[in-house]
Amino acid sequence: MSDLISALPTTDETGARIRLVVFDFDGVFTDNTVMTDSAGNEAVRSWRGDGLGLQALRSLSIATWVLSTETNVVVARRCEKLGIPFRQSLADKHEALLEVAAAEGVGLDEVAFVGNDINDAACLRAVGVPIVVFDAHVDVLPLARYRTRSGGGFGAVREVCDWIGASIRATQAAPR
Amino acid sequence: MSDLISALPTTDETGARIRLVVFDFDGVFTDNTVMTDSAGNEAVRSWRGDGLGLQALRSLSIATWVLSTETNVVVARRCEKLGIPFRQSLADKHEALLEVAAAEGVGLDEVAFVGNDINDAACLRAVGVPIVVFDAHVDVLPLARYRTRSGGGFGAVREVCDWIGASIRATQAAPR
Amino acid sequence: MSDLISALPTTDETGARIRLVVFDFDGVFTDNTVMTDSAGNEAVRSWRGDGLGLQALRSLSIATWVLSTETNVVVARRCEKLGIPFRQSLADKHEALLEVAAAEGVGLDEVAFVGNDINDAACLRAVGVPIVVFDAHVDVLPLARYRTRSGGGFGAVREVCDWIGASIRATQAAPR
Amino acid sequence: MSDLISALPTTDETGARIRLVVFDFDGVFTDNTVMTDSAGNEAVRSWRGDGLGLQALRSLSIATWVLSTETNVVVARRCEKLGIPFRQSLADKHEALLEVAAAEGVGLDEVAFVGNDINDAACLRAVGVPIVVFDAHVDVLPLARYRTRSGGGFGAVREVCDWIGASIRATQAAPR
Repeated sequence: MSDLISALPTTDETGARIRLVVFDFDGVFTDNTVMTDSAGNEAVRSWRGDGLGLQALRSLSIATWVLSTETNVVVARRCEKLGIPFRQSLADKHEALLEVAAAEGVGLDEVAFVGNDINDAACLRAVGVPIVVFDAHVDVLPLARYRTRSGGGFGAVREVCDWIGASIRATQAAPR
Repeated sequence: MSDLISALPTTDETGARIRLVVFDFDGVFTDNTVMTDSAGNEAVRSWRGDGLGLQALRSLSIATWVLSTETNVVVARRCEKLGIPFRQSLADKHEALLEVAAAEGVGLDEVAFVGNDINDAACLRAVGVPIVVFDAHVDVLPLARYRTRSGGGFGAVREVCDWIGASIRATQAAPR
Repeated sequence: MSDLISALPTTDETGARIRLVVFDFDGVFTDNTVMTDSAGNEAVRSWRGDGLGLQALRSLSIATWVLSTETNVVVARRCEKLGIPFRQSLADKHEALLEVAAAEGVGLDEVAFVGNDINDAACLRAVGVPIVVFDAHVDVLPLARYRTRSGGGFGAVREVCDWIGASIRATQAAPR
Repeated sequence: MSDLISALPTTDETGARIRLVVFDFDGVFTDNTVMTDSAGNEAVRSWRGDGLGLQALRSLSIATWVLSTETNVVVARRCEKLGIPFRQSLADKHEALLEVAAAEGVGLDEVAFVGNDINDAACLRAVGVPIVVFDAHVDVLPLARYRTRSGGGFGAVREVCDWIGASIRATQAAPR
């Protein structure tokens, strides 16, 4: 468990080393609210700007995944629109995290996990770079190294993407 | 009527004694807004994190109920998703409260009621632990012992669940 | 034009004299946003607590109306749910205001109008008690005598209803 | 690139010279969030007050356009409702901007562009009057001359329209 948490910086060496970013969905890609209509259909609210961030990571060959415990198909619909691979209805996100990291051939020390609630605790503990969104549940704050300045569904995903991209560019631009 | 209101603490002895939590729906499970579309269909906005809180109460055998005056089926749809029993279209929530407490075999002094508006007044007056959400109507603030730090639909339900769970754990961990 | 604007008080003599309240819809009953879906259907966001306020006015025999320039049927759907009479698709709200006041047999000095934007200017100028919501357009602020403390769609309608009800009760309770 | 950015004033000489306003859609006409439902349908949230602003520009013969990279039909539905011409699914907004300005017969120095994110950078650099919304991405702030006081989807479009209209009226009213 990390004993330090800091606001996500603009760039740093940690950001430049990440090869895989795994995101929780609700509360990270969304503002953690859900609309329920008369038919029981759900809708979630997310951030248009996340798409440009994920696109930039792809161009840098950084792998990205969404892992969600939710069974609702809105998770699938939003991830398909963004072109990000996902697994949902997960009883155990931690197991899925290990499988995804292995499949991508990335060591856990090079993985960032972005979460917001206690069902993200095992994943936050497992990775080299645990990140929580600004409005994460108080119980997971001690598990994170970084906290985004943006709230979930209001630019948190984009902020993580921007940080990694800018960190890589800063490293490449640095004198050797 | 309570003459003291305080912010809901992290843990306390009162929280550890609760055996039944009864919630109003609109303004407690939701942010008290309603979306209305061209067909007159309604949709409400609630908090994904409430599910984890209610699940924790169930594992502690704390009973939970939703009582609502609203007739719209969105109440039913959200409660079904969360797996919480509910009664709606209630002309008299207070009568329903008494019936639910009796059916659960719990004395009113061990019941917490969470409300937000004047149609919750009789229920708040009736129970041992009256709670209002942060953004409750000013007229019911004097009726409550606790006020959540979170707004309705933005974690108020979860906060009440967390408080009860943490209070029970604190009691069990205390030296005897 | 009023040269004074003040926050809506809890009670006052003006509130006790009102016999008809006419509301604009968008930005007053709603937060002035509109959701548009892929089919071009619209949905608006309003406040559950408004219903209790309007119900209280009805029990006091205070007449209420909604006048809107919008042609979308969401206006009708929300007003029907609340049981408030309405006229919409109005090119000239001011003309409709005069007709409604005449039909209700109420002089304009006993009418409150609640608006939020420049197409409410003529109505605000015409009535005895012009009111704007907290987040009204800057150009109509000088036309109002009162400004609600709540935003449109977040309790502004309820606040006006509460003020009138409490003002009437305060007048009746006052020593003679 | 402009080296000065200031809050959009109420009136100024620059506003009086504009003959064409080109807007990005998401984050400018909307709050940059998107609702996604179970069927993958999207809905966006915009500001009712924008309509009155655009109507005022039309009455002043100021041309307006929306240019969007988004392919979703919600862009079309909202623009049709507002009566503003649009082009969407644009891989290159800058090229479309040049075409629109040419078609309208307006030089780029008389064009205002209102954007919010990095895919607006080329357009912001190209026009005489680059404007960003209050909550624009930090990377485009240095490209703008003005920043609205309102957020996207919460009056930013209306604010730009009001500024142009008031600037023209101020110029016409000024002594010669």
